[in-house]
Amino acid sequence: MSSGLVGPVEVVGTGLLGTSVALACRKAGLDVLLSDVSAEHVRTASALGAGRPRGAEDRPQLVVVAVPPDHLGAAIGAALDASDPVTVVTDVGSVKSGPLAAVRDHPAVRRYVGGHPMAGSERSGPLAATADLFEGRPWAVAPHTGADADAIEVVEQLVGLCAGVVVRLDPADHDRAVARTSHVPHLLASLAAGRLADAPADHLKLSGQGVRDVTRVAAGSPALYGQIVTANADAVLGLLGEVRGELDALIAAVSAADGDALAALLEQGVAGTHAIPGKHGGPVRPTASVFVSVPDEPGVLARLFAAAGESGVNIEDVRIDHDLGRAVGLVELVVDEASGEHLLASLESRGWVTHR
Amino acid sequence: MSSGLVGPVEVVGTGLLGTSVALACRKAGLDVLLSDVSAEHVRTASALGAGRPRGAEDRPQLVVVAVPPDHLGAAIGAALDASDPVTVVTDVGSVKSGPLAAVRDHPAVRRYVGGHPMAGSERSGPLAATADLFEGRPWAVAPHTGADADAIEVVEQLVGLCAGVVVRLDPADHDRAVARTSHVPHLLASLAAGRLADAPADHLKLSGQGVRDVTRVAAGSPALYGQIVTANADAVLGLLGEVRGELDALIAAVSAADGDALAALLEQGVAGTHAIPGKHGGPVRPTASVFVSVPDEPGVLARLFAAAGESGVNIEDVRIDHDLGRAVGLVELVVDEASGEHLLASLESRGWVTHR
Repeated sequence: MSSGLVGPVEVVGTGLLGTSVALACRKAGLDVLLSDVSAEHVRTASALGAGRPRGAEDRPQLVVVAVPPDHLGAAIGAALDASDPVTVVTDVGSVKSGPLAAVRDHPAVRRYVGGHPMAGSERSGPLAATADLFEGRPWAVAPHTGADADAIEVVEQLVGLCAGVVVRLDPADHDRAVARTSHVPHLLASLAAGRLADAPADHLKLSGQGVRDVTRVAAGSPALYGQIVTANADAVLGLLGEVRGELDALIAAVSAADGDALAALLEQGVAGTHAIPGKHGGPVRPTASVFVSVPDEPGVLARLFAAAGESGVNIEDVRIDHDLGRAVGLVELVVDEASGEHLLASLESRGWVTHR
Repeated sequence: MSSGLVGPVEVVGTGLLGTSVALACRKAGLDVLLSDVSAEHVRTASALGAGRPRGAEDRPQLVVVAVPPDHLGAAIGAALDASDPVTVVTDVGSVKSGPLAAVRDHPAVRRYVGGHPMAGSERSGPLAATADLFEGRPWAVAPHTGADADAIEVVEQLVGLCAGVVVRLDPADHDRAVARTSHVPHLLASLAAGRLADAPADHLKLSGQGVRDVTRVAAGSPALYGQIVTANADAVLGLLGEVRGELDALIAAVSAADGDALAALLEQGVAGTHAIPGKHGGPVRPTASVFVSVPDEPGVLARLFAAAGESGVNIEDVRIDHDLGRAVGLVELVVDEASGEHLLASLESRGWVTHR
């Protein structure tokens, strides 16, 4: 039906994700129609330049459903009901099987292709939105077996227009994938963080960077995350069952001081960290870390990065260690392994206090 | 017996931690004696300027035992055996009750005061050592009830000389504290990472920053971590029992789609993330994040930090998002909440692509 995404695009739900999609479409010059149960959200999103309220005569080419997880299935069904026989419907929900099941028997289901951009923020609502939110991020496109090829093409063009990177998975695979790479890690982070909630303050003084990293995602919204996990219950429960078995094995190994069994469990974790794809989707490249002690004052990072920049080395990652009781910070610069010694020597020659 | 730490200091075990302590003592002008079962390690550490091999006539004022967890108790006992009646003995082991139990009945136990600097590295061995390793880091000092006040003072002076921050805890408290803030988070990170080890590669393409953060520590040495966990089995098992109970409750809540129970578990995690002390040991200050899209090329971070520095805002933390398939990075600058809007406006006025 379509030789490309030309608009209009309707966005249903003008929160962070919906308004960000709308802004990206506007930036590309498409006509964007906005709908939300909150008229105020539509006004805010319109004022931000994300589009205009949908009118009765409007005929969108593509409807993007961006409502909370609990309302996805109904909203996708309503979009299929209300639209022209050629309108494509997609969504940006975190889970794909449940919404699909809700519309599986809809006569227009071939025009629905689920999607899920791996982007977000601790913030929510249209004011947090930006046209660049999806830039370089994976965006799952999860067509069901009966989906029209043209509809899939339109949705993948939306991803390209938002500068996302298409990862094609079928809906059940998608849900298993995010259970493993997002939902279960989040739940385990919550269990680790939960143990800190009532800990003596003196004990927490020994907190280092490790526990901060492990627990960071657990600060996310319980209401939103509860909906997401519940909507992906099957895949999450499958993995939580595995976790429970491994936890029992771990408890048994520690109880019995069985070093071999414990090492095997820890080795599996090491293998898992190595399985995560590297930056830019390529294989993991070996890196070196250069640590630098810096005073905690404005401008010091600018001077440090200027010094690193003069060495011509590309900084792959940066971590700042939060120190306790002293106005000094430890900055870890992660670089390609081959560049580590050069950066170290270069920074030392410029008077920085470095450690390997 | 002593009016202060004047040396000589003997370091037993010239790996990363021992050699770093030795370098810090040398930097402070103290005479440092080195011992290790590996004569090569002693030669390497000596060549790095960490001290000299201990001779038969040497009489250390303080012995610092820095051997692997499995050998701590025996090495501390040997140090007490071999030393003068005034020599203080400490260690830098990750666990404190086990080594103390091993020397509890030693006639000289009053001269032993356990310690544990919260510092380390993915690297090991004397070549990774640095005099600055402990700068600004918490360093637990865990005297038993029978320890000499003078011995405690000498050990706390060692911490000060290494620029560490003393956190005084009794040995059992210390072990419970690190079980909670280090060992159990590490084990849960290993369980999360373990689920990735055999995952389909397509699924792992959806990995975002969250799962990278949760699993990072799980890349650490299984041999070393296995020894640490086994040496702290009681405290670790107590918490793993709690985790198991909470995991069962979580599985039940997800199975029953019990939103309230699930939200309560997630809320406890949120409370835990808020309980971790802020930078410099103070209360957690509210922060704002400013996100900036940058091309992945040498020098870009220098330019970004220079621009941020010109705004006069102190960057509290930095994260770089690893993108998939595109040569663009997303940098998160964490600043004091009151400075967020100013930084955003300042960067935008300089042409940076920012998002909230």
